[in-house]
Amino acid sequence: MEIFVYRDGADHVEKGHTVEQLPELLKQQKDVIWVDMEAPTAEDEKILRDVFHFHPLTIEDCHENRHYPKIEEFPGYLYLILHGVRADTSPDHFNTIELDAFLGPNFVITYHHEFFRSIANVKQLLQTTPVVCRRGAAFLLHQILDQIVDYYSPVLDDFDERIDQLEDDIFTLKSPSNVILAEIMDLKRGVLRLRRISSKQMDVLYRMSRGEYSLIDQPMLPFFRDVHDHLVRVTDLAENYRDLISGALEAYLSVVSNRLNEIMKVLTIFSAVMLPLTFIAGVYGMNFENMPELHSRYGYYAVWAIMVIVAVGMLSFFWKRGWIGGGKAGNREP
Amino acid sequence: MEIFVYRDGADHVEKGHTVEQLPELLKQQKDVIWVDMEAPTAEDEKILRDVFHFHPLTIEDCHENRHYPKIEEFPGYLYLILHGVRADTSPDHFNTIELDAFLGPNFVITYHHEFFRSIANVKQLLQTTPVVCRRGAAFLLHQILDQIVDYYSPVLDDFDERIDQLEDDIFTLKSPSNVILAEIMDLKRGVLRLRRISSKQMDVLYRMSRGEYSLIDQPMLPFFRDVHDHLVRVTDLAENYRDLISGALEAYLSVVSNRLNEIMKVLTIFSAVMLPLTFIAGVYGMNFENMPELHSRYGYYAVWAIMVIVAVGMLSFFWKRGWIGGGKAGNREP
Amino acid sequence: MEIFVYRDGADHVEKGHTVEQLPELLKQQKDVIWVDMEAPTAEDEKILRDVFHFHPLTIEDCHENRHYPKIEEFPGYLYLILHGVRADTSPDHFNTIELDAFLGPNFVITYHHEFFRSIANVKQLLQTTPVVCRRGAAFLLHQILDQIVDYYSPVLDDFDERIDQLEDDIFTLKSPSNVILAEIMDLKRGVLRLRRISSKQMDVLYRMSRGEYSLIDQPMLPFFRDVHDHLVRVTDLAENYRDLISGALEAYLSVVSNRLNEIMKVLTIFSAVMLPLTFIAGVYGMNFENMPELHSRYGYYAVWAIMVIVAVGMLSFFWKRGWIGGGKAGNREP
Amino acid sequence: MEIFVYRDGADHVEKGHTVEQLPELLKQQKDVIWVDMEAPTAEDEKILRDVFHFHPLTIEDCHENRHYPKIEEFPGYLYLILHGVRADTSPDHFNTIELDAFLGPNFVITYHHEFFRSIANVKQLLQTTPVVCRRGAAFLLHQILDQIVDYYSPVLDDFDERIDQLEDDIFTLKSPSNVILAEIMDLKRGVLRLRRISSKQMDVLYRMSRGEYSLIDQPMLPFFRDVHDHLVRVTDLAENYRDLISGALEAYLSVVSNRLNEIMKVLTIFSAVMLPLTFIAGVYGMNFENMPELHSRYGYYAVWAIMVIVAVGMLSFFWKRGWIGGGKAGNREP
Amino acid sequence: MEIFVYRDGADHVEKGHTVEQLPELLKQQKDVIWVDMEAPTAEDEKILRDVFHFHPLTIEDCHENRHYPKIEEFPGYLYLILHGVRADTSPDHFNTIELDAFLGPNFVITYHHEFFRSIANVKQLLQTTPVVCRRGAAFLLHQILDQIVDYYSPVLDDFDERIDQLEDDIFTLKSPSNVILAEIMDLKRGVLRLRRISSKQMDVLYRMSRGEYSLIDQPMLPFFRDVHDHLVRVTDLAENYRDLISGALEAYLSVVSNRLNEIMKVLTIFSAVMLPLTFIAGVYGMNFENMPELHSRYGYYAVWAIMVIVAVGMLSFFWKRGWIGGGKAGNREP
Repeated sequence: MEIFVYRDGADHVEKGHTVEQLPELLKQQKDVIWVDMEAPTAEDEKILRDVFHFHPLTIEDCHENRHYPKIEEFPGYLYLILHGVRADTSPDHFNTIELDAFLGPNFVITYHHEFFRSIANVKQLLQTTPVVCRRGAAFLLHQILDQIVDYYSPVLDDFDERIDQLEDDIFTLKSPSNVILAEIMDLKRGVLRLRRISSKQMDVLYRMSRGEYSLIDQPMLPFFRDVHDHLVRVTDLAENYRDLISGALEAYLSVVSNRLNEIMKVLTIFSAVMLPLTFIAGVYGMNFENMPELHSRYGYYAVWAIMVIVAVGMLSFFWKRGWIGGGKAGNREP
Repeated sequence: MEIFVYRDGADHVEKGHTVEQLPELLKQQKDVIWVDMEAPTAEDEKILRDVFHFHPLTIEDCHENRHYPKIEEFPGYLYLILHGVRADTSPDHFNTIELDAFLGPNFVITYHHEFFRSIANVKQLLQTTPVVCRRGAAFLLHQILDQIVDYYSPVLDDFDERIDQLEDDIFTLKSPSNVILAEIMDLKRGVLRLRRISSKQMDVLYRMSRGEYSLIDQPMLPFFRDVHDHLVRVTDLAENYRDLISGALEAYLSVVSNRLNEIMKVLTIFSAVMLPLTFIAGVYGMNFENMPELHSRYGYYAVWAIMVIVAVGMLSFFWKRGWIGGGKAGNREP
Repeated sequence: MEIFVYRDGADHVEKGHTVEQLPELLKQQKDVIWVDMEAPTAEDEKILRDVFHFHPLTIEDCHENRHYPKIEEFPGYLYLILHGVRADTSPDHFNTIELDAFLGPNFVITYHHEFFRSIANVKQLLQTTPVVCRRGAAFLLHQILDQIVDYYSPVLDDFDERIDQLEDDIFTLKSPSNVILAEIMDLKRGVLRLRRISSKQMDVLYRMSRGEYSLIDQPMLPFFRDVHDHLVRVTDLAENYRDLISGALEAYLSVVSNRLNEIMKVLTIFSAVMLPLTFIAGVYGMNFENMPELHSRYGYYAVWAIMVIVAVGMLSFFWKRGWIGGGKAGNREP
Repeated sequence: MEIFVYRDGADHVEKGHTVEQLPELLKQQKDVIWVDMEAPTAEDEKILRDVFHFHPLTIEDCHENRHYPKIEEFPGYLYLILHGVRADTSPDHFNTIELDAFLGPNFVITYHHEFFRSIANVKQLLQTTPVVCRRGAAFLLHQILDQIVDYYSPVLDDFDERIDQLEDDIFTLKSPSNVILAEIMDLKRGVLRLRRISSKQMDVLYRMSRGEYSLIDQPMLPFFRDVHDHLVRVTDLAENYRDLISGALEAYLSVVSNRLNEIMKVLTIFSAVMLPLTFIAGVYGMNFENMPELHSRYGYYAVWAIMVIVAVGMLSFFWKRGWIGGGKAGNREP
Repeated sequence: MEIFVYRDGADHVEKGHTVEQLPELLKQQKDVIWVDMEAPTAEDEKILRDVFHFHPLTIEDCHENRHYPKIEEFPGYLYLILHGVRADTSPDHFNTIELDAFLGPNFVITYHHEFFRSIANVKQLLQTTPVVCRRGAAFLLHQILDQIVDYYSPVLDDFDERIDQLEDDIFTLKSPSNVILAEIMDLKRGVLRLRRISSKQMDVLYRMSRGEYSLIDQPMLPFFRDVHDHLVRVTDLAENYRDLISGALEAYLSVVSNRLNEIMKVLTIFSAVMLPLTFIAGVYGMNFENMPELHSRYGYYAVWAIMVIVAVGMLSFFWKRGWIGGGKAGNREP
């Protein structure tokens, strides 16, 4: 647990306060106090209960760690659940970490079970530009939210790239086809999850940005609206990616079926050309005593001639129908 | 029929009161009375009518036992229909039991046709921590709701596991394919039912948690909001499972079609390679008198050589087109 | 045209009044008058116009008989269009009859072009329990609505059964496949129609049950809400059936395609096994003078041995790939 | 441009007034003036601007002739765009004509680029029953709207018939299959257009019928509500047709695929039966010196017997699997 | 950066003012000032901050250049993001340029990173008809919006044409099939993007046209409503194109599958006709000593006769089933 205190009007952020000092610190209405709990212990949860007097249900929600983004107003504080992108996330295994946050008139509490990139960034920011605290606790919370949302952009770019790559793979069929199919399924799952998280997060930000809560005052609203706009874009793109992935699946099915089509054509042509020739050969393999052709001097050569004519005739028939390479209405591969 | 009475301020819950005492008990505005009717008789329904004076339509609704979750306000009481998960439910046969509940200022009545796990749990809870009654009838009802909703979680985990298993089965095609298809249909049916029930239940809880009813006072709202949040998650996951199952069906169709594709390829290659060879053999099986090759000393060996060349030529043609195993643009199984 | 009159406080319902008495009867604000017009004549429509002074458009609507359920308020009366299930309806030919109804402060008028089961039932009810009129005209109308909605339940059961039957048929493919397809189409059409009608009817009941109309007073609302709940269930199930039928179509397409798959496999195996054998036989049918094998004593038997080896080799290859019956990864029919 | 004037209380409609008289006529608040502009000239548009003082944007909208139905209120008048069905429309080429209309307190102006059936009908109506003007300008406009909407009914009947015909064609596959597919595409396009137009028109009528505009007073509302109801039905049926057409496409794809299935079966059976027989014949066509069977007296007949047994055995195998005509689980055409 | 100033009542627009003059110019409440920033520098952004005192977030939004259309109200000004169609856009690569605009009581500021056609057009318009400024800054902004929206029309026409072309290509299958599929995917992507942009833009215009902002006064509303109507049409058509493209994909898949069907038929007929003939020839190629037919004088001719009968019999069987050209129930290509 780390405690940061910004004294009103100061030019730096104090660190290293102890839990015992908290009640005293909270009395300073104009200061800004940030308590960050990483991998919190039972001790930490006791502070939430006894020092901040949060509703037992919210503390339980913090502890459980499997909720979607939401916001709830309680007397004297706001309780938020937010989701940040995991550092090791990838489009086919999209994953998030939960952040629980409390916003009071002069404090922000963040609670998370694992290391959280955005939180670490804001801590650094406090050292370099402590001025971000001057606008109060809500602005500090906005900084955290902004950092969280910024990490969604590279994920979207990853999705973009993977879908492009996927579409290329589909048309060239370079990868084995079941690999492509599994990739489509994974991406779809990832996009569905991204959309679900980001649309819920968008709802949270929407409520924060329309002036519903007295803890977030008028001049703060444009900042939360800005974060909301980012999330609208994320949600919109996730929707878009879902459409593109559906399209990719359809294209994939069609390309695979076209391939089958092509193979079928080869079979047809081979069978259709070979079968009559084999039949002709069979006829003159018969052992009838009275078969005049067999005794003709040029019978053998005549049969070869007939076979060639039959083969050429059939091939040109297929060519005219556009079933072979450069026909009238070709169905070639591009 | 069991009657539980919690006297205001007491430290235990009284049991064993008789129906005749009910009117007297109900006069104590600060006590909490819980009447649980399991497999109710006509006698029990008479009590609902004559002691509690409930609207005849609600009593009829109780009796009928095939409604979706709903909530209705009547003068002096709330009438709820809720659905708990059956103990013997499974993802492909998702099933629920109906619970009818009445909430009055100082009483809760539960009415169900079968043994109900959540009710049994709350009865036990009353023995161990009778304090749950201290906050009034609405809090007791919240306990029951909480128990009901908790039983949805393992069902969701079951669905999760079955869908994962299903996706594995699809890619390996280990199970016979019609078995997979039937499994997909069953899971879809189960998920549709789960979503229908939980979304209606969610609506009920939403109305209970937004302070619409005077019988549920302000400090109770966060508790009902908590149950509501659980149901939002259930509904959301049910939606998600539906999407995944649709995706699984598409994948299944595609995998089956890929398999056909593979089989077709083998046919094509066999036919295409064998037919010309058979034709060549047929040619030299003809009985023409004048076939010079037949009398050549090495004619037979030459024909074998031609056949090998034809076969190798065709195989390499197919290999180049990527139709056989390790070709230029392989379409192998992964 | 039949006229029923219930005098306030009486214990029976009078029948057999004439049209001429109507204006006089309507003056008794506390009585309840029900005029039922079956297969109405121009005479009847004149009564609607001249005695009841209904808006000409509503009378025209009655006459036309091809509207969806709706409700409209006019000064002094409500005009409703409702749809009852036809007696001869079946899931694949779902059909309804239109009922036009007018509700005034002390009268109900029902107008229908054909015999209407629910109306007949209510007429009988009036004889046995005339008390249903004691609560006024709105309650009488509720009785009619209740009867109408009750006839939807067996239709839903029929749908349920037919869809179950359909799913069985799909997996066994007992019926010819185009018959199944036609059945799916018919059921879909029926369900779409059921959903359309019942959702519109639900809207009508919703407006009646929320206290929007002064002609339906507060104590009547739960009764209409009850009918509304029934229709919610009907609409919900219709929605559910639509989903199941879509699923059935997908399953059907997949089962048919699996069947093709199975047939293709047999073809592949036969061709693939037979073609090489035929080729070998062809080779030794050639007429070359110099073919040493032909003169070998055991050549013939050696060829048979080779053929058996080739056949067994290929079959075991297919068996290993899971293409034949009990292979490693069987694709058998269940 | 034609001008019709109905003097308050008169029993006929005057015709033949000139443009110059218009300003004078418009001063009579109780008269009803109808100006119809067919294929309007720049002169006509000047009148809209200078005599009626309409907003320049509305005049521009009139001129442009490619808008969807809409309604806009301006000080002193309502501006409407409506779409009538073209006389030469057909389900696969559904087409509409645009009508621009202005409604003032005592005037109606209609503006259209082509001959408009509904307008012509109303002109005739004015001659026979001039009384339609007695209720004011809004009622005259209602007459026009009513005529326009009436022309939608035959189109719906046409769609109905075409879809029925289409479904028959699909199951019999009488027409060439690409013709059916093109028909499905055309009908879908037509239905989408119909739905788009009629739903926008429905919105216009909805706003006119709910008393939003002071120019349409209370007693007029049921008349516009009546037109609205017609459009609700049109939109609803268009929706329904869209569903049916989607279903028809699915059925078509399935029927085509069943056909392929059937053809595949014939191929399988022929190949599977013929190949072994050909193989047997091939065996005894071999030229080995030592083939004892060849010298046997009844060898030839024994081979025939074997061939018949093989053929019958295979056919009965297929028959048992239900792949031929009257098998255990037949897949016959109905 | 270019500055245009219209002095109230003047008959021309002044150009060439410097940044330094801006504060002075802005004090003239009745003048209209337009500042256009093309490819803006840090200097320009400084002006936005220091001269106009815009909110830092809006300036950042301008700079970033990857937002969807939106509108935000700040004290004293409106901030809009709009998207114009790029000059080099095409249906399969639909692309837009972002325009940021600020509307104040007497100024309009436009900010764009590239050359913007619509802006250039309005600049020209100012020279020819400076009167457009007389109605104030909002009307000037409307001119810009109108120009932007006008450029959407040719794009829609392009889409229309391409989809028509596509449908033709599908039925003739002139282009190679993967080319068609790629075209469908590209068009779908383009249409999805068009719809996304135009529907967001429509929302912006909707809010501007309903009188929500005091900076746009009552008489201006019809003008913005007009632009809104154009965007409704764009969005509607985009929706329509999406439906048509989905339909095209379905048709494409079906046409490809029909083609396969046709090819399969040829294979079936060839195989089915040839195999029995080959078998017969094989039979009489057997070397049994005792084969009476072989010694018959007309045996050879008899076999030929049998072969012809078999072939004709089979062809007529296929013809009757409608599998060949002009059969009973033909499945010909149109």
